[in-house]
Amino acid sequence: MAVLLSTKAATMAMWRDALLAVDPTLEIRLFPDAGDPAGIEAAVVWTAHDMAELRRYPNLRLIVSMGAGVDHLLRPPGPPPGIPVARLVDRMLTTQMGEWVLLNVLRFHRQDLDYRAQQRDRVWLELPAPVTAERRIGILGLGELGTHAAGLLRGLGFPVMGWSRRPKDVPGVQGFHGPDGLAAMAARSDMLVCLLPLTPETRGIVDAKLLGLLPRGAFVINGARGAHVVDADLLAALEGGQVAGAALDVFDPEPLPAAHPFWAHLRVVMTPHAASITIPASAAPQLVENIHRARRGDAPLNLVDFGAGY
Amino acid sequence: MAVLLSTKAATMAMWRDALLAVDPTLEIRLFPDAGDPAGIEAAVVWTAHDMAELRRYPNLRLIVSMGAGVDHLLRPPGPPPGIPVARLVDRMLTTQMGEWVLLNVLRFHRQDLDYRAQQRDRVWLELPAPVTAERRIGILGLGELGTHAAGLLRGLGFPVMGWSRRPKDVPGVQGFHGPDGLAAMAARSDMLVCLLPLTPETRGIVDAKLLGLLPRGAFVINGARGAHVVDADLLAALEGGQVAGAALDVFDPEPLPAAHPFWAHLRVVMTPHAASITIPASAAPQLVENIHRARRGDAPLNLVDFGAGY
Repeated sequence: MAVLLSTKAATMAMWRDALLAVDPTLEIRLFPDAGDPAGIEAAVVWTAHDMAELRRYPNLRLIVSMGAGVDHLLRPPGPPPGIPVARLVDRMLTTQMGEWVLLNVLRFHRQDLDYRAQQRDRVWLELPAPVTAERRIGILGLGELGTHAAGLLRGLGFPVMGWSRRPKDVPGVQGFHGPDGLAAMAARSDMLVCLLPLTPETRGIVDAKLLGLLPRGAFVINGARGAHVVDADLLAALEGGQVAGAALDVFDPEPLPAAHPFWAHLRVVMTPHAASITIPASAAPQLVENIHRARRGDAPLNLVDFGAGY
Repeated sequence: MAVLLSTKAATMAMWRDALLAVDPTLEIRLFPDAGDPAGIEAAVVWTAHDMAELRRYPNLRLIVSMGAGVDHLLRPPGPPPGIPVARLVDRMLTTQMGEWVLLNVLRFHRQDLDYRAQQRDRVWLELPAPVTAERRIGILGLGELGTHAAGLLRGLGFPVMGWSRRPKDVPGVQGFHGPDGLAAMAARSDMLVCLLPLTPETRGIVDAKLLGLLPRGAFVINGARGAHVVDADLLAALEGGQVAGAALDVFDPEPLPAAHPFWAHLRVVMTPHAASITIPASAAPQLVENIHRARRGDAPLNLVDFGAGY
């Protein structure tokens, strides 16, 4: 039985080699060259893979996402009924996202947009010292990524809050949940960091209403999915000064069209969905472990909960 | 007996109030209104205060610097002979500098100069994922500031090295010392962070020779003193690609003249000596404690070693 691998053409060979380095006995077929459909037992796929296509394989026992977010895979028509989907929970994805969040929190905390503008204008002016213990960070989402980022920020002395769907107890993090909790946390968040899964409940969560609840001059950081943010609402909040800056790694759609106002906005810092890049050598052991589990009939690691949407 | 306070006019009242909040019985005279010179027992002074002027006070028992670096105070003619000089070792100075170093290490590590340029040009392009465990950071100086920064960077998973005048054992930090150690550390430093005191031995330490030893494409971060860096050598290393970027908080002279090439250099990130700003309320308890010690005839905290120069 074989594994179907589907990802960007440029990285296909690197992924195959990483999987074979963990288990040289694997037979790996590179999409679209799937061979006999009945020979495919597992599919390792990136976000752009067509879920309808996966219905072609009668003996498929497992679908493995190559990233942490699986919202693309759960969109209609969704994966073939009855086939478990696993997502990637990778230490290197988590640490990369933690670095990206930390970079942008420190960028805004240390007035870096202003200091860059001063350098451009050759202005030598010391701005008031920012006080870390008074800069409250609200994190949307306390999963792997949110919990890790919270720990890094707490370690630097920032007061950290976190909002999650269900009540969640993370040491040192003031917890909020539900719609009331969302409003309560937003009202105290000098920086709002979005690390949520994208579900029908969280789509468009960063809208005019939520942005309006933030303390004036707050900052917004989105490392989750572009569709969490209502672009027009964020732009309006930036124009009016309600939001003083935004760091965005994700957009809807991607790549962000060249005419989109984010590109040239002086208070928007963009990266091209690069906050957290899956590194084949780091991810391969978990992918192979899940293939082995599927063969044994065991539940995969990091099984996606279809009801919850992540 | 009174305390002479000398700092920027704009912050004089804030400093006086902070000292009085700790000890309301202090008599504080604001320079240049020193009153009877014989009434001054201690001088709390910033870097620009004239050391020759301090010879006017016959009963002076202590000079306290309002910053961590004391190189300005030790320049000829230096403080009046026999009078102890204390410097400020303040947790908030240390944490601010740690944040500034972290911001700039992450900026360079996460290819932020390149991503800013891509945003300017509306280019959507994911750059290769940087690997934290392979980005070696060499710190010049393992005093309060260097040791704290080393701990933050280690916590994020960077391999950290440190160079000091005398052999020094910091847990988790590979130590180097002396001229051979300097060359050995530089040859392994993908980023070189300067947090040294400025002494005759360290003046101009970041010169063409040291920069030439770095791995090609290394980054330089200077949060210490402008005179540690030979500007012309750093500019040449940036032009030739030997150094890929520099973050500089300190300059010689300050403010940096408007015609200096650093201002407009696309690979130089500047802040106006703002990495670490002394906050009166945080520093006052230590300053007052040293005034009390001087009255009792005890040695001050954080006494400057004139031989070592810090």
